[in-house]
Amino acid sequence: MKPVKVGLLGLGTVGGGTVSVLQRNAEEIQRRAGRGIEIAIAAARDLDKERPFDSSKIELTTDPQAVVSHPEVEVVIELIGGTDTARELVMQAIANDKHVVTANKALIAKHGNEIFAAAQKQGVMVAFEAAVAGGIPIIKAIREGLAGNRIEWLAGIINGTGNFILTEMRDKGRDFADVLAEAQKLGYAEADPTFDVEGIDAAHKLTILASIAFGIPLQFDACYTEGISHITPEDVEYAEELGYRIKHLGVSRRTDSGVELRVHPTLIPYRRLIANVDGVMNAVLVKGDAVGPTLYYGAGAGADPTASAVVADVVDVVRVLTADPENRVPHLAFQPDQLSDLPVLPMADIETAYYLRLEASDKPGVLADVTRILADLDISIEALLQKEPAEEAASVPVIILTHRIREGRMNDAISRIEALATIQGKVTRIRLEALDA
Amino acid sequence: MKPVKVGLLGLGTVGGGTVSVLQRNAEEIQRRAGRGIEIAIAAARDLDKERPFDSSKIELTTDPQAVVSHPEVEVVIELIGGTDTARELVMQAIANDKHVVTANKALIAKHGNEIFAAAQKQGVMVAFEAAVAGGIPIIKAIREGLAGNRIEWLAGIINGTGNFILTEMRDKGRDFADVLAEAQKLGYAEADPTFDVEGIDAAHKLTILASIAFGIPLQFDACYTEGISHITPEDVEYAEELGYRIKHLGVSRRTDSGVELRVHPTLIPYRRLIANVDGVMNAVLVKGDAVGPTLYYGAGAGADPTASAVVADVVDVVRVLTADPENRVPHLAFQPDQLSDLPVLPMADIETAYYLRLEASDKPGVLADVTRILADLDISIEALLQKEPAEEAASVPVIILTHRIREGRMNDAISRIEALATIQGKVTRIRLEALDA
Repeated sequence: MKPVKVGLLGLGTVGGGTVSVLQRNAEEIQRRAGRGIEIAIAAARDLDKERPFDSSKIELTTDPQAVVSHPEVEVVIELIGGTDTARELVMQAIANDKHVVTANKALIAKHGNEIFAAAQKQGVMVAFEAAVAGGIPIIKAIREGLAGNRIEWLAGIINGTGNFILTEMRDKGRDFADVLAEAQKLGYAEADPTFDVEGIDAAHKLTILASIAFGIPLQFDACYTEGISHITPEDVEYAEELGYRIKHLGVSRRTDSGVELRVHPTLIPYRRLIANVDGVMNAVLVKGDAVGPTLYYGAGAGADPTASAVVADVVDVVRVLTADPENRVPHLAFQPDQLSDLPVLPMADIETAYYLRLEASDKPGVLADVTRILADLDISIEALLQKEPAEEAASVPVIILTHRIREGRMNDAISRIEALATIQGKVTRIRLEALDA
Repeated sequence: MKPVKVGLLGLGTVGGGTVSVLQRNAEEIQRRAGRGIEIAIAAARDLDKERPFDSSKIELTTDPQAVVSHPEVEVVIELIGGTDTARELVMQAIANDKHVVTANKALIAKHGNEIFAAAQKQGVMVAFEAAVAGGIPIIKAIREGLAGNRIEWLAGIINGTGNFILTEMRDKGRDFADVLAEAQKLGYAEADPTFDVEGIDAAHKLTILASIAFGIPLQFDACYTEGISHITPEDVEYAEELGYRIKHLGVSRRTDSGVELRVHPTLIPYRRLIANVDGVMNAVLVKGDAVGPTLYYGAGAGADPTASAVVADVVDVVRVLTADPENRVPHLAFQPDQLSDLPVLPMADIETAYYLRLEASDKPGVLADVTRILADLDISIEALLQKEPAEEAASVPVIILTHRIREGRMNDAISRIEALATIQGKVTRIRLEALDA
């Protein structure tokens, strides 16, 4: 089957990320979508700029019209941002029978009702997973994954800049202006930070989430928006003393008389999982009547995470264009004839870190013997803890954390350690995963 | 459009939950799916058992064959568990041209390859979101939401019973057998707990997740499985001392030589979000090359949470049966003609709790005045904190946490407080949400 041709509007941060991900994961994506995805044309303001990806097979143009009217393009990806030009181009793409994928939260929050109606009429798809919480598939989760629920409320940390600032204020006792300046230096905040710190960006996203959760039209103008610039280090500290963290939340709740739709700084109990979502990360908590509370966590911005959502939407569209409806999404994510024969590794070949607990005779030289065995097998020790012997016990517990090593090697080490005369019984071995990403 | 008729195999815990959710949320579900969903027939072992739902319009039978061959049933929901009879019935349903929704992890992990091939050939859908992590839409997230990524690894707490036991062991220093007995009394653990505590249940789920993440056939027999019964309170305590928590994790990682597929107790750094997933809750951490780490959290078992996933799958099927492919999932989750005119509430009508900070003159009677104003407006105080005055300051900060109250009432209270001669400047007001579910 011929690849699906897509056209790109915008080659900035997210545009560049989208090209990178589509190129880098081309084979993986084709195995999932059942068809290749090819960027035929891309519109950018400056054609001479150096790009961190291979643009040799992409027709570059400064004319966005050439993208939305390109005869071979089936999917237009809108990544230019803003609401005026973007709206016009998206409406034209729809009129030209193109499917549209967009990451533009302002566009959807303000003009979504109009855009969706046009798409519905024209029989084309409009997908916008990347518009809310970057790479977290939160729109799909609410719209499809929780479709059996009556959603009661949702609350989200949906602006990374604001969360970074509040996290720094709490961790280091610094004040708002100070941290904002740093965030601007690090590139986490724009030169004009209003959109982020005054909650406008979060309000765009919350507007979209609330409509999907409660089945109401998009009503951005009705969203209450309060920023975080008035939060003082004292407030952060007092909140902490009382058992709370301050987060910039978007909250939407269904009541009998209407829907609450509000973005503002919010104290939340520090023991809640979402209170521990720090730095630039995003998370959305959704409470359904059947499922109870669910939480979705991940990167809310950045080139690659946003591209992750954009490309997922493109794959969704391609799956509809390619398969009969019943087989749209393959059971195991990849097309049945595209499963890999990559073997499942035997345990001896896996690699992880380890916690070991030994019962050692309380005699000199035991630790030397044990650490020698580990050293001989090239197993590095991360931490070692020797505990007091229990009363009248002839042995002392020794706990060792190791660095990552093949399990086969560790099995060898454990046999040798258990063979020592000064070690009693079996070695307790629990695997350890740092889960850093 | 006529409702879609479904047939139910099994009316146990999840079966009952599924009927309840479909009945309770019938209107909401129809607005989302574009079509009603009607349970035409259900097979149960005991027809005389009292049911916590209205079964007057459901044909009850002891004969599962009557369900899979019912001429009007388009979707068969398999909730009887086990792998022998369930496999036969599912294969028959497929042969009879029925779509299938199942919550049966053992069935999919062991016979999924065969079932999917049959479904593919017959042109019917088989959906199994409820088979992994109950109500968390993790299969949809990986299969569709992260479709642009090369998945690098995933790690999940995917057995609630095991997580409950390990959480209790840590919180209370109790030993395994002791907590297991309590879990059995509470109904969190089966009389024969082997499936849960030895990791077999988790291995079924991990097998499914790994196939979807890495595009390999289901290979349950290749999964390494180690239980938690040998974990001692000492190990839990030593791990804690070193900065780790012990969780029963399913881990799957892609390496150049193969896929790691293993369930075992695992130390993880206590600062990771997933280390703080406690009690019977589940969570899955997925690392994609583009999106980075993402986490999905929610209830992994129970009647209603599992039913949430079952019904979501039924809605997915009905959306395919009902709409043209391009409009399968409505943009805003609900069908365009089914949006509600529920208004967005003005801020004065929302309800939340509050953190108030006042600068009070360091004089007697100030607190009495403030608390009198709150009492007059029926605003209850949850906590009050009076801080030391800053050196040479003429005022002291007073912090008040209130219970939930309408914002209009709070605005009134704040105006009255600010009008007091003994209060300096504006009252700082930050909203507070307990987010308990």
